[in-house]
Amino acid sequence: MSSNPTPRTRIVREPQRAVYDRDTINQILDEAFLCHVGFAVNSNSDFQPYVIPTSYGRNGDMLYIHGSAASRMLRNLDQGVPVCITVTLLDGLVVARSVFNHSMNYRSVVILGTATLVDDPAEKLAALRALSEHIIPGRWDDARQPNEKELKQTSVLRLPINEFSAKVRVGPAVDDEEDYAFPTWAGVIPLEMTVGAAIRDDRCERELPAYLKTYSRRKEKMG
Amino acid sequence: MSSNPTPRTRIVREPQRAVYDRDTINQILDEAFLCHVGFAVNSNSDFQPYVIPTSYGRNGDMLYIHGSAASRMLRNLDQGVPVCITVTLLDGLVVARSVFNHSMNYRSVVILGTATLVDDPAEKLAALRALSEHIIPGRWDDARQPNEKELKQTSVLRLPINEFSAKVRVGPAVDDEEDYAFPTWAGVIPLEMTVGAAIRDDRCERELPAYLKTYSRRKEKMG
Repeated sequence: MSSNPTPRTRIVREPQRAVYDRDTINQILDEAFLCHVGFAVNSNSDFQPYVIPTSYGRNGDMLYIHGSAASRMLRNLDQGVPVCITVTLLDGLVVARSVFNHSMNYRSVVILGTATLVDDPAEKLAALRALSEHIIPGRWDDARQPNEKELKQTSVLRLPINEFSAKVRVGPAVDDEEDYAFPTWAGVIPLEMTVGAAIRDDRCERELPAYLKTYSRRKEKMG
Repeated sequence: MSSNPTPRTRIVREPQRAVYDRDTINQILDEAFLCHVGFAVNSNSDFQPYVIPTSYGRNGDMLYIHGSAASRMLRNLDQGVPVCITVTLLDGLVVARSVFNHSMNYRSVVILGTATLVDDPAEKLAALRALSEHIIPGRWDDARQPNEKELKQTSVLRLPINEFSAKVRVGPAVDDEEDYAFPTWAGVIPLEMTVGAAIRDDRCERELPAYLKTYSRRKEKMG
C-alpha cells in the first residue's frame, strides 16, 4: 500500500532515498519506539520550535504518545498545534574514500499532522496498552495495570499517520570514480541498538520472564 | 561549569532529572552524533514544525550541522529561523511493577537558538573537520579531503550552545510502596548502540585502520 506525498512531505534532498509506502513506514515505526516530537510555541512575535524525545505506540494508522499533563509538550499540544513526529533508526556509518561521500545508513519516518487529546476512556486505555506492548510486548498483562488516579494523571495524544514520508539509505559507500584509487579503507561500520543483560531489581526475586529473555528491537535486517 | 536555565529551557516535568551544567551537556553531545533539528515553516497563517535527523559536530561551545543547499532544512534555516536541536541517548528500559511507573534511562540535551550560515571559508573547513572527527575520530586525515566544488555544494550552520538543558534518568525502577508485593519481574533492560563487524567495500583491499578497529560511541558509563 502506498500513499502520495504532499508538497510538505515530498523528499527534496536525495529523492532516490524516498519511501512513501505504508508497509515500510510501519516496519520502521514498529522497530523503533523513540520518536522526536516537534511543536512550535508562540513567544512574542516569533515561533520557537521545541523537539522532545518520547516513546510512542501504534494502533493501525494511528500513532499515540503520552505524558504528564504537567509537561511543556502536552500543555501546548492539547491546544491543537501542528506537530511533526520523526522516528530515526541508525544502521551504520558509510565510510567513503572522500570526506564528502561519507554518509550513514538509516531509516527515518516523518509524520506531519495535528495531535489531539484522547478523551474517550476506552481509546485511552487501548492507546496505553498499545504503547506498552509496542515497547515491551507481553508486559501489559504481566504488570499492575493503571488505576483511575494514574489514568487521570496521564494525557494521551493521537496523531493520524496520514501525511508521511520515509528516507532509507542502505548499502555500500558510493565514491566518485576517480577516488576509488585513493589509498584508504572504505566500507560500512554497522550500528545497532542492542540489549544488555537484564539487571534485576534488588527487591525482586522472580526469574526473568520469557518475553524479556528474548527481547530485541530488530524486526528485519535491511542493508 | 554550570549555566542558568532560561524560562524556555527550565525543565517542567520531572525536574529532579534536570541538568544544566555544561560538562554533562558536552559529555552527552560528544557520545552521540545524531541530533534532531526542529524548525517551523510559515505555511499560510500557521507554523508547521519539521524535525529532521542529521549528524553534528562540536567545537567548544559551538554546534555545527551541515547539509546540501538543496535541502528543505537549509533552505529555511539560512533565513535565520529559530531552531531547537535535541540529542537523545537511550540507556535502558525501566521495567516497574506498575505500568504507570515504567520508564526509560536516557540522557537528552535540548539546545535552543538561532542557527546561522557559516560564510568564512576557514571556519567552514574547521566545522566540517569537527563534524568528521566527531563521528569517526581519525578519519579526516585518512580520507580525501573536500575540494572547492564540494565545499560550495555543502552548507554549514552554526548554533551557539548558550541556551540549553539536559534531562538524565539513571538507576532502578521506582514503584509505589504497595506495588512491591505485586508478583512480577522488575528491573532494567540495558540498551546500547553497538558496533558490528566492519564490512569492507568490494573495491577496497586495505586492512581496517586502528581508529575503526576500536570504534565505539560509549565514552563513559552512566547508570
